[in-house]
Amino acid sequence: MRDAATVAAGIAADATLAVSGFGSVGDPKAVPAALAASDRDLALTVVSGGSTGDAVDRALVEADAVARRFPFVATDEARAAVDDGRVAFADRHVAGLADEMLFGRLAAPDLAVVEAVAVGEDWLAPSTSLGQTPAYVAAADEVVVEVNRAQPRGLARLHDVYRPAPPPDREPIPLTDPAGRIGAPRVAFDPAKLRAVVETDRPDDPYEFREPTAADEAVAANLIEFLAAERERDPVLREALTLQFGVGSLGNALMGALAGSSLADGRLRYFGEVVQDGLLDLLDAGALDGASATALALSETGQERLFADLDRYADEVVLRPADVSNAPALVDRFGVVAVNSALSVDIYGHANATHVDGTRIVSGVGGGGDFARAAHLSVVALPATTGDGVSRVVPFVRHVDHTEHDVDVVVTDHGVADLRGLDPRERAEGLVGLADPAHRPALRSYRERASGGHVPHDLETAFDWE
Amino acid sequence: MRDAATVAAGIAADATLAVSGFGSVGDPKAVPAALAASDRDLALTVVSGGSTGDAVDRALVEADAVARRFPFVATDEARAAVDDGRVAFADRHVAGLADEMLFGRLAAPDLAVVEAVAVGEDWLAPSTSLGQTPAYVAAADEVVVEVNRAQPRGLARLHDVYRPAPPPDREPIPLTDPAGRIGAPRVAFDPAKLRAVVETDRPDDPYEFREPTAADEAVAANLIEFLAAERERDPVLREALTLQFGVGSLGNALMGALAGSSLADGRLRYFGEVVQDGLLDLLDAGALDGASATALALSETGQERLFADLDRYADEVVLRPADVSNAPALVDRFGVVAVNSALSVDIYGHANATHVDGTRIVSGVGGGGDFARAAHLSVVALPATTGDGVSRVVPFVRHVDHTEHDVDVVVTDHGVADLRGLDPRERAEGLVGLADPAHRPALRSYRERASGGHVPHDLETAFDWE
Repeated sequence: MRDAATVAAGIAADATLAVSGFGSVGDPKAVPAALAASDRDLALTVVSGGSTGDAVDRALVEADAVARRFPFVATDEARAAVDDGRVAFADRHVAGLADEMLFGRLAAPDLAVVEAVAVGEDWLAPSTSLGQTPAYVAAADEVVVEVNRAQPRGLARLHDVYRPAPPPDREPIPLTDPAGRIGAPRVAFDPAKLRAVVETDRPDDPYEFREPTAADEAVAANLIEFLAAERERDPVLREALTLQFGVGSLGNALMGALAGSSLADGRLRYFGEVVQDGLLDLLDAGALDGASATALALSETGQERLFADLDRYADEVVLRPADVSNAPALVDRFGVVAVNSALSVDIYGHANATHVDGTRIVSGVGGGGDFARAAHLSVVALPATTGDGVSRVVPFVRHVDHTEHDVDVVVTDHGVADLRGLDPRERAEGLVGLADPAHRPALRSYRERASGGHVPHDLETAFDWE
Repeated sequence: MRDAATVAAGIAADATLAVSGFGSVGDPKAVPAALAASDRDLALTVVSGGSTGDAVDRALVEADAVARRFPFVATDEARAAVDDGRVAFADRHVAGLADEMLFGRLAAPDLAVVEAVAVGEDWLAPSTSLGQTPAYVAAADEVVVEVNRAQPRGLARLHDVYRPAPPPDREPIPLTDPAGRIGAPRVAFDPAKLRAVVETDRPDDPYEFREPTAADEAVAANLIEFLAAERERDPVLREALTLQFGVGSLGNALMGALAGSSLADGRLRYFGEVVQDGLLDLLDAGALDGASATALALSETGQERLFADLDRYADEVVLRPADVSNAPALVDRFGVVAVNSALSVDIYGHANATHVDGTRIVSGVGGGGDFARAAHLSVVALPATTGDGVSRVVPFVRHVDHTEHDVDVVVTDHGVADLRGLDPRERAEGLVGLADPAHRPALRSYRERASGGHVPHDLETAFDWE
């Protein structure tokens, strides 16, 4: 057992660190905090699994220790640094990140720093997330394990560690059920790589979900009504409705609304990226045939609830490596209905999920693209306006993360637009109808002056919005 | 055996026809021509596999018989009708189209009209493409088979008909090698569906590839140099370089340039959507460990060359259903290097592949997204300017088909920009360097006035280009 400060002192000033964890949970805390607290002049490359907690994304950034960052930022400090150009940043699809670190040119990690609830000579048992831990310990030259005593050891029961073989002879992932198990409970690593084990008792930074707004509740009601009708129509969904919800307060609210709905009556499964509070209600009600994710993303009360009954939840919740939880091949095979949010959608169905005004970073694309593209049905759900009354339905989104080809259905608090099989002109009609009534006349006016061809536009005024 | 005009006369005026074929080959010709020649007032929905030949995309459109069209258009007549709004059109990813027709809401086909070189009571042997034929005969209420005597019967040897099971319990596709065979040589159908067999002798409309320009040759040279270096670096590519090239003259030229290059020395495989003339040189040289596609897309001389030696080519070329040839799961497992073209790319790496000026349809997104997103390495290759000297490198593409998240490397006649791991500001630097020298000062000027955050822009002038 080593002291985090001593370990941190031995890390090169320009090292590339692969810190796994996901959704601000299960990420290393002690070594990043010790790096941030040192007086050294650092220019680290930090690759996380998804978003991370305060030690990485606040303390290290405030200490001006991060030169380069992948694939997600989650604090205002990190956002400002990325926007200013102080931190070079690229967001990546979650499912492809493991391969990019193992074979690509994204970054070559010197050191993997990962959290565990237990560690052995050549294995570790992860805590609240599995994320990219297996890939990062495989990709890195050395490994530092933080054993976190604040995390219950029973978390080890949640994990199912399956490593896809490398291309070009990669075998299909042999998972036949979202809640199935195909791997080991622990992450194995080459014992020669183990540089240090440190101990910590810093708890995870819990998620803070806002209370659902009236608009959130209206979005949820519209979504549930649509999905209920769609399940009647589509034999794939009648057989099993397999859902994924994006990370965040709206996704959490949508999950929560399912528990009391008619959708809870049929065969319901969850195959997503994170387990949020809203899913616990469905699990408690016995309405879910299991839940698959790569991490927990729970509020403080959600954590308490899960930790208090870990053995029961471990029978139904499986945490997988992020390249399995988000594998497009599995999303396709399970017929997932993907429900992701966006900052804005345009009248032709393109969605901006990452950049405010097309320029300022929010967090990163995360796993949204993994699910939206491969889904049996891809839904974008969002309130029609921001809290300030600005329309989220616009003529031309200023940054495209999900193209019109990947958005089947849009849901707002004002209704549902089923875009499947529609020409752009028809799509625009449907989407203008989802805007807040106060914004519809201006959007209609845009449509009237838009011209050209298949996708009519008036490019001179297309961005006079958002 | 029935007369095409008689069969056409029995088709409802507002029928939904699923015509399979792909890349203007192997598509039905007699029934669409008979429909076009009739004096009836038709408002058909026509769903093809990809692009089609003149009978569908010229004659039927000129007869004003098409009300709705998916997922690709390939003639000026069809483009004009789509741009005018006379034909409602939506382009879709090729890999997902079978599921959309079987379970989605794209269109419910009344009749599948498909070409064959032979037919039985409950089977048919497809001709120059397999495309969506298996899915469309499964999805449609009735089937009309056109037996084309102008196609050699030996084409039947090329096909490997494997049907993925439906979600939510879809099994992984058991293909372990791009050139492997996992299915039947024939397409099976419910004999109760067979409405008619007609005979025709209309040959395919051959592809007309333009001669490679100096710019095409420079793109090819830059691409080959980059791939040779990348193969040295990346163990996955050293094991096997598995290529896909987009459909068209540039893709054909790139394929052709490989045959005389150092890349032909290692283990080379092809896993793409179509077999173009350029691939025949590689096959003839014995440089390919097999080629997988869903259709032939050959010039007249290419067709003659392949038909003359069909038995030999059939040992190396496999045609698959389009949801197998383009399956993202297989693209991932085989570690495919995807090389697709675009109309334009912007300085942050987004690509427009479908709409001139962001508004007028070219053809459709086709399979580009299936490969680009799932690829081990995604390359966009294009000349830096149009034939008229307009820059294809722009500040903001007017339509996004492939987002910055799916474009790893851009190649033009002026060089290679490896965007992996780069911040948008760095990407812009690389991409401006790929523009024609005459356009670089204006692009640099845009970069200088661009501001905001992570992705700097000057939205007022972002579209003063292209």
